[in-house]
Amino acid sequence: MDADLIRPLIEICGSDSVLHSPEAIELYSRCTIPWSRTCGAVVLPENVDQVSRIVRLCNEFRMPVWTFSRGRNWGYGTVLALQEGALIVILERMNRIHEVDEELCYAVIEPGVSQGQLNEYLKNRGSNLWIDAMDSSPDGSLIGNALDKGVGYTPYGDHFGHLCGLEVVLANGDIVTTGGAPEQCPTRYTYKWGIGPFVDGLFAQSNLGLVTKAGLWLMPKPEAFEMFVLKISNPENLVPVIDAHRQLALRRTVSNCHGFNEFLAVARTFGYPSHRLNGKQFMSEKDIEQFAVEQGLAAWTFIGGVYGSSRQVKAHKSEISEYLSSLGQLIFIDDTLAKRLKSITSGVRKPGVQGAFYKGLKSVAHFFGPTTSIEMMESLLSLYPILKGEPNESILDLAYFKNKEQQPNKNLDPVRDKCGLIWFAPILPARGNEVQSFVQNIKRICAGNKFETPVSLIQLNPRTFLVLIPIIFDRKNPEETRRSQGTYDQLCELLETHHYQQYRCTTPQMEKILECNPSYQHLMKCIKRALDPNHVIAPGRYGVCHTLPINDSDLTR
Amino acid sequence: MDADLIRPLIEICGSDSVLHSPEAIELYSRCTIPWSRTCGAVVLPENVDQVSRIVRLCNEFRMPVWTFSRGRNWGYGTVLALQEGALIVILERMNRIHEVDEELCYAVIEPGVSQGQLNEYLKNRGSNLWIDAMDSSPDGSLIGNALDKGVGYTPYGDHFGHLCGLEVVLANGDIVTTGGAPEQCPTRYTYKWGIGPFVDGLFAQSNLGLVTKAGLWLMPKPEAFEMFVLKISNPENLVPVIDAHRQLALRRTVSNCHGFNEFLAVARTFGYPSHRLNGKQFMSEKDIEQFAVEQGLAAWTFIGGVYGSSRQVKAHKSEISEYLSSLGQLIFIDDTLAKRLKSITSGVRKPGVQGAFYKGLKSVAHFFGPTTSIEMMESLLSLYPILKGEPNESILDLAYFKNKEQQPNKNLDPVRDKCGLIWFAPILPARGNEVQSFVQNIKRICAGNKFETPVSLIQLNPRTFLVLIPIIFDRKNPEETRRSQGTYDQLCELLETHHYQQYRCTTPQMEKILECNPSYQHLMKCIKRALDPNHVIAPGRYGVCHTLPINDSDLTR
Repeated sequence: MDADLIRPLIEICGSDSVLHSPEAIELYSRCTIPWSRTCGAVVLPENVDQVSRIVRLCNEFRMPVWTFSRGRNWGYGTVLALQEGALIVILERMNRIHEVDEELCYAVIEPGVSQGQLNEYLKNRGSNLWIDAMDSSPDGSLIGNALDKGVGYTPYGDHFGHLCGLEVVLANGDIVTTGGAPEQCPTRYTYKWGIGPFVDGLFAQSNLGLVTKAGLWLMPKPEAFEMFVLKISNPENLVPVIDAHRQLALRRTVSNCHGFNEFLAVARTFGYPSHRLNGKQFMSEKDIEQFAVEQGLAAWTFIGGVYGSSRQVKAHKSEISEYLSSLGQLIFIDDTLAKRLKSITSGVRKPGVQGAFYKGLKSVAHFFGPTTSIEMMESLLSLYPILKGEPNESILDLAYFKNKEQQPNKNLDPVRDKCGLIWFAPILPARGNEVQSFVQNIKRICAGNKFETPVSLIQLNPRTFLVLIPIIFDRKNPEETRRSQGTYDQLCELLETHHYQQYRCTTPQMEKILECNPSYQHLMKCIKRALDPNHVIAPGRYGVCHTLPINDSDLTR
Repeated sequence: MDADLIRPLIEICGSDSVLHSPEAIELYSRCTIPWSRTCGAVVLPENVDQVSRIVRLCNEFRMPVWTFSRGRNWGYGTVLALQEGALIVILERMNRIHEVDEELCYAVIEPGVSQGQLNEYLKNRGSNLWIDAMDSSPDGSLIGNALDKGVGYTPYGDHFGHLCGLEVVLANGDIVTTGGAPEQCPTRYTYKWGIGPFVDGLFAQSNLGLVTKAGLWLMPKPEAFEMFVLKISNPENLVPVIDAHRQLALRRTVSNCHGFNEFLAVARTFGYPSHRLNGKQFMSEKDIEQFAVEQGLAAWTFIGGVYGSSRQVKAHKSEISEYLSSLGQLIFIDDTLAKRLKSITSGVRKPGVQGAFYKGLKSVAHFFGPTTSIEMMESLLSLYPILKGEPNESILDLAYFKNKEQQPNKNLDPVRDKCGLIWFAPILPARGNEVQSFVQNIKRICAGNKFETPVSLIQLNPRTFLVLIPIIFDRKNPEETRRSQGTYDQLCELLETHHYQQYRCTTPQMEKILECNPSYQHLMKCIKRALDPNHVIAPGRYGVCHTLPINDSDLTR
């Protein structure tokens, strides 16, 4: 990058905070998707004034600047820009927890605050509040995930819906407090819609400003909690199970349930089972079924949390049983059982004491089905704390599925470790038959490209399911890498045919994401041009740019 | 209005739809607040194309155009514009119900659809869905109220939060579908945040576009429902009651409770008790207390709904009792009891049969307290159907408090009937002591201006209370009318001193509403200028305009 830009960047943030060595550039230009862009430099500001000054500087230099909260957006694009040589701003050093209000149940945090950090902070101060954890790295940013419209498990699972009151740096460097009220307004962090137009949404999946602080609503720790697990052996039951979850969520009995198929469980738990291929290039449905039977895996597993007073949890459980128990094996796990199961599964691992633990294991085997393997039990139990707002790294195992030899014991980092992963993330109405039929189509495309299909089904809200497909590939294999891209492209075409929308998309796909809705695209162009006339903030992110030709219906005519 | 504009308006909408006679102008220039603006003409388009053509026409003529869904915004400004001679567009003839999805629980409606209309429509087709009714006229628009961030009673009480998928006409006449997905996207009405920036908020309390169609999430009829009533005799208990409601709502046991003081109950139920003034200009606290005792009114009454399966309602009721029963007299009313009470209260009214009914009344008197008058019971029971999504006119009685002789038996219309009413609507964090102290300050100002103080406390969300004060005055009395304005102005100053924000404000107050937050005001100005360069859509609505001087930090520099 031009030394004329590096120099003032160092003046603003200090030389420790501006990374532009070839090693740094290489590291920050990595990503897990089969695509590449090389950044110009990386800057790690420490406060909002530095952010404001950086943005003003980029205006002078007409330098594209892409901001990331902590940059753990693996599988979508990590910290890559659409433009070669862009300035990357990572806000991980802005990690102050400004305030936690125990009465009104919110925290005021900066984008560098990770979910692990806030969880620890709350635990250490004996707080009665829980975060809603995402099923992702503890290192991930809470604000970053919320602005990307991420989802968790608890009644606070709609992360963007639980942000309240933003501080935003605009493209001209202005620092704005949203909500229309004065900055010191006592309801700034309690009332989301504010007075006048509600603008916070402009800064979600966007390039219209950089969020530097936000209120985040937290959940008071419930008196009682249980996790339910529904194991569905008959794959045809997926249809009524989705319909039942729609009804349960509409009745506010469950929140954001997560379901997964047997191959997703395999990919979370093991390395790729190449030894079972017998010369084939990928596992057939039949091979997978056989493997699943050995591991005691059901075709589909759904999990969710039940929250409330003891009485309410009991009432909710009755409803859940009524809707679900005829559709599969329904298990409820509370703290006591979770602890017991955990001590047994970890006991079995210890040499010497295995015998006794296997006996214990047998006594609880009926909870999961008698053939369930230790690995599968561990994998399922790793989700239990996440439903209570305690994040862990377990889901990241998935990214290492074809890269097992590179997986460290902790501090997983799929980008650093050169994993190959693309997320395909279409959303569908919560109707069983529609979801099942689309999953079948996805499987057909994956099989046609010699990939197995791990499937997650995540309830974004009572009316909507996210069908989340990780395309996991071996980056060291150029042919497989190309094939992963082809698969993703075909899946995107399938989505277009059905007019489905996506929940999030990969950076390279952003360029055409709004083409399906030209009048909306035009509206965004006009807003972008008004707020960022020099087109410096992340041009093209989520389809928003103003370099498109100006047409007849231009708003400024 | 200029005939050159009337002519093309008639060409677009037909002569029946363009009102510009002196009588029409007079009628549509009425409002309940002490303020006046005379409109130029009124147009009632029937479809989105007409709306689009009207807006294009206004661009040609640089004519301010103020749109209202059905114009029942009494107490805030009805259908008055900030500018003299503006064109008023009322969308009441766009009242199509395009779709009701019984599975995914939503309706797609136009802004002319009233809450009474959708409720009847659902009942007539045997739907299993409920609307969330507002405690206002059945004639009020569902979309209009949602865009004004209105609030109801059920778990769907946050009306803007339950809109999903808008069709908007922009200032250049473009018709835009929000959400970033293609128009025929199957999740258009199920997933609110869409892909890319979420722009729907730009059209709430706004002048950036006209909403012509929207999805509205509906609530599946619960298996069980009960209303709770908490009568609080000791006014000091307001503090713990608010704190308890915060905790209950945070625990998702109650939703948007409504509380009111004794004088609000009086104003809902009777004409102004001038006969009790004994020569004074207004009733003292002591007079009101005495009146309340006679009517069996508590200092404060809180009501709310309990929704769920029979088991869940039972569990929720246990929680409510635990939090509230020590703070006042707690009553639960279900359909059976409501019916019984209703038959008794209406029976008492019938001549001849009164004796038997008074006996019946005595047998249920313990529910409300032995001294509760029939009028007060009726007034409370009128809220019961509203909590079940069935709107009625009962709250409008309030507007006629000083205008009782003008009140018809039905089809209440406070504007037509020249009632005097201003709503003062500050919002506060849900902390008992803060709310109580602010209410005391409000009462002091009202008393200083020789007004009694009716107070509503409405829980906007678990963390926030709306303190809703109707200033009711006799329009025929110029001195009292002036006094009402002075009171409102002083209350707004009080609000500013505390840095509180408002939930909604009156039209004349909009001009300065954003002055407390200049950088936010500037952001809105830039967006307004980009989307409405000729400044035709409702200039100045909720503080958004672009006629402010352009300063140094202008975004387009």
